Amino acid sequence: MHSVKALWKLMFFVVAVGLSTTSLIHAEQPQLPAPENVRLDDLNFMTGFPPVGDKIINTQNKTKYPQLRWTLQHTRELVPTRNIRRGTAPVSKLPAAPLDLSAFAFQDDKGQPTTIGKWQKDTYTDALVILHKGNLVYEQYLNREADRNQHLLFSVTKSFTGLMAAQLVHEGKIDENALVPRYVPELANSAWGDMTVRQVMDMTGAVKFREVYTDPTTEIFGYSFASGMLPQPPNYAGPKSIYEFLPTLQKEGEHGAGFIYRTVHSEVLGWIVSKVTGKHWADLMSEQIWQKLGMEEDAYVMIDSVGTPLQGAGLCATARDLARFGEMIRSGGEFNGQRIFAQAVIDDLRNGGDREKFKASGMAFRPGYSYRSQWWVLHNADGAFEASGIHGQMIHINPAAQMVVVKLSSHPVAGAGFTHAYTLKAWDALAKAVKQ
Amino acid sequence: MHSVKALWKLMFFVVAVGLSTTSLIHAEQPQLPAPENVRLDDLNFMTGFPPVGDKIINTQNKTKYPQLRWTLQHTRELVPTRNIRRGTAPVSKLPAAPLDLSAFAFQDDKGQPTTIGKWQKDTYTDALVILHKGNLVYEQYLNREADRNQHLLFSVTKSFTGLMAAQLVHEGKIDENALVPRYVPELANSAWGDMTVRQVMDMTGAVKFREVYTDPTTEIFGYSFASGMLPQPPNYAGPKSIYEFLPTLQKEGEHGAGFIYRTVHSEVLGWIVSKVTGKHWADLMSEQIWQKLGMEEDAYVMIDSVGTPLQGAGLCATARDLARFGEMIRSGGEFNGQRIFAQAVIDDLRNGGDREKFKASGMAFRPGYSYRSQWWVLHNADGAFEASGIHGQMIHINPAAQMVVVKLSSHPVAGAGFTHAYTLKAWDALAKAVKQ
Repeated sequence: MHSVKALWKLMFFVVAVGLSTTSLIHAEQPQLPAPENVRLDDLNFMTGFPPVGDKIINTQNKTKYPQLRWTLQHTRELVPTRNIRRGTAPVSKLPAAPLDLSAFAFQDDKGQPTTIGKWQKDTYTDALVILHKGNLVYEQYLNREADRNQHLLFSVTKSFTGLMAAQLVHEGKIDENALVPRYVPELANSAWGDMTVRQVMDMTGAVKFREVYTDPTTEIFGYSFASGMLPQPPNYAGPKSIYEFLPTLQKEGEHGAGFIYRTVHSEVLGWIVSKVTGKHWADLMSEQIWQKLGMEEDAYVMIDSVGTPLQGAGLCATARDLARFGEMIRSGGEFNGQRIFAQAVIDDLRNGGDREKFKASGMAFRPGYSYRSQWWVLHNADGAFEASGIHGQMIHINPAAQMVVVKLSSHPVAGAGFTHAYTLKAWDALAKAVKQ
Repeated sequence: MHSVKALWKLMFFVVAVGLSTTSLIHAEQPQLPAPENVRLDDLNFMTGFPPVGDKIINTQNKTKYPQLRWTLQHTRELVPTRNIRRGTAPVSKLPAAPLDLSAFAFQDDKGQPTTIGKWQKDTYTDALVILHKGNLVYEQYLNREADRNQHLLFSVTKSFTGLMAAQLVHEGKIDENALVPRYVPELANSAWGDMTVRQVMDMTGAVKFREVYTDPTTEIFGYSFASGMLPQPPNYAGPKSIYEFLPTLQKEGEHGAGFIYRTVHSEVLGWIVSKVTGKHWADLMSEQIWQKLGMEEDAYVMIDSVGTPLQGAGLCATARDLARFGEMIRSGGEFNGQRIFAQAVIDDLRNGGDREKFKASGMAFRPGYSYRSQWWVLHNADGAFEASGIHGQMIHINPAAQMVVVKLSSHPVAGAGFTHAYTLKAWDALAKAVKQ
């Protein structure tokens, strides 16, 4: 029992850094509770006046499972956050054109018969929203109030940061070939001292970032303590914020050699964006995206002790609002006839990055993928690409099928690899199903 | 210098409990910086990537002055909070009918000539919004982004709790003559064991609640540590939440004898409301008020370690949204033709409480007032009544002048008494000015 607990804890750590340890997690899989046994509707976490005993979720148990199923919908109730304001514009309509997709049958990654509805449950899905040609064809929520609560998106956050950076490159405000210290002098003596902005965007910079969960001197602990993701231990004397921590990281290997997934690159990229624009990430998100797409709800972002946003992992938003965002991306940067991002920027994301370099990632569960400006590109026949975060967060865009899928989940296992093979089959099934 | 700092600290403590120590604060007034010397636009708190040195505001210095001027607009960036959702209804219009009120001249409480504009600045006002017959006649913000940021309202929060409780009494769901343990059995052995709900609502219950800021064994420290308003000291073994703390408080004196202002009564009243309705205070606020009045922005509330809202001090909202709320109250519980609260409930607030009992409060700066269901009633010729919170938060309603004033401020001094005499003169001036 104790070792299972330790494993959950370990898995959550992976949150912070993305997921180079996925194979480890995959290798050591404990007995997992089925989703129907851990529904918030039955568990009644944080209900009662006051909640008592095992109904309480706090900073000590928030990352355990199944408590995590609550935590991912209630981040602001546990930590400081900054608002991403939708403004006062009317809510943009998502025209409903319901299709009965849940019974649509397909074969899972093990060749077994399944359906969209079963896949949705099997993969611990909280919210599933599907647009086809901009119409809302499917929308189902399986975990209490997942329709209205802003859901923690983990590394989906990166794709927003990458998009804003790519737009600034397009506008000539950032030179992707410049070295990072041109924009962030504080990083001159760090791993980023001789790294280009493009290497940061595509995560091909070489930074020493060890994740040894039994060794608190490894960098993953530094990041977790500095960002506030983990409470600082007594007498802690290390960096107290993300921007104090990043300059301590050193180079290891050769920049540009291969793709190695590191959340710290996204934090650096967000830092560059703020230095160049003079604006806080949350304000840019509001002005450039949330106020322009007629979002239903404000979004928000986790912040560290000096207000720096977790630009690689801290965004929280609702599924319908993410669908609006995905539809804007699918439409080449336009939404309701208004240009939001340049077509060339979206095209560049879609075209993807270097598939050879991607192989260095060790992410066998993403076969044939590449990574470009903080987006995952499938390089399949439909030209699909996606944003992805651990515990099962996805914005999947399929241009050929004119489809956007938002899937927000609360897996017991952090790693995207946990359900990715199954979900790849579901993407194909959905692309067929919406064309019915 | 050190004693001035200590005094600021002391003053902030008063936040938690309302203000029975106002006279103390009034007696010992340090040299105060003029408002124009402490404008957020000039101080640049929490700007820069990252903010450094004295630009940083954190849980250690958030209650100091002038840092407090930032803190009151950015509560969620420092502590956990729960959302009060506006929903997806269109924003209700506040028809603009601007009047040039700022030059309107009157005599201040010392008989000196002044103007509305000067009073606004003199009293460290962040936001001032005035409605006349439901029209927006005046709106001015003097402290960076005070128009869009949710401002901490301190004890204005109580008036929302009181209103919801009064409505439940009206509907027969709460018996105001019942003893508190009928609804909250947890309080059977506390000061509230033999106290009626009405005594809680009007703060005439007798509870031992000492505020000795040099003695951490007094109850004010218990409240501050339990609610999360102050960080718990090392090895702290006391109550860890508001509802763990309240049952420890004991009776002192006779219930019903006189009005003694205690924030803990508001927390008990909120507890009763949640027990009776089965709903969290934030959800009630959303369903009964925020979703019904076409608010522009979500509001939010500070919560303790188990999600219990600070029902006596933790609400944060924008000035324009509070003006909408005030207009609904002025209109006898209706808004845009829709009934929100019963006319009888609003009438009962307006009629006020026992003015003789009020004299026990020691609040000489509120001459002739009474307190009813967590509202302050002026008993003046215009029938005015108001919600009020420390550091200068006010929703002032003048039925005769058909006027609602929302004033959000960030005084260096916590106590309402700091500017109240001056503000009473301003209320009269405004009532004349809007009739021009």
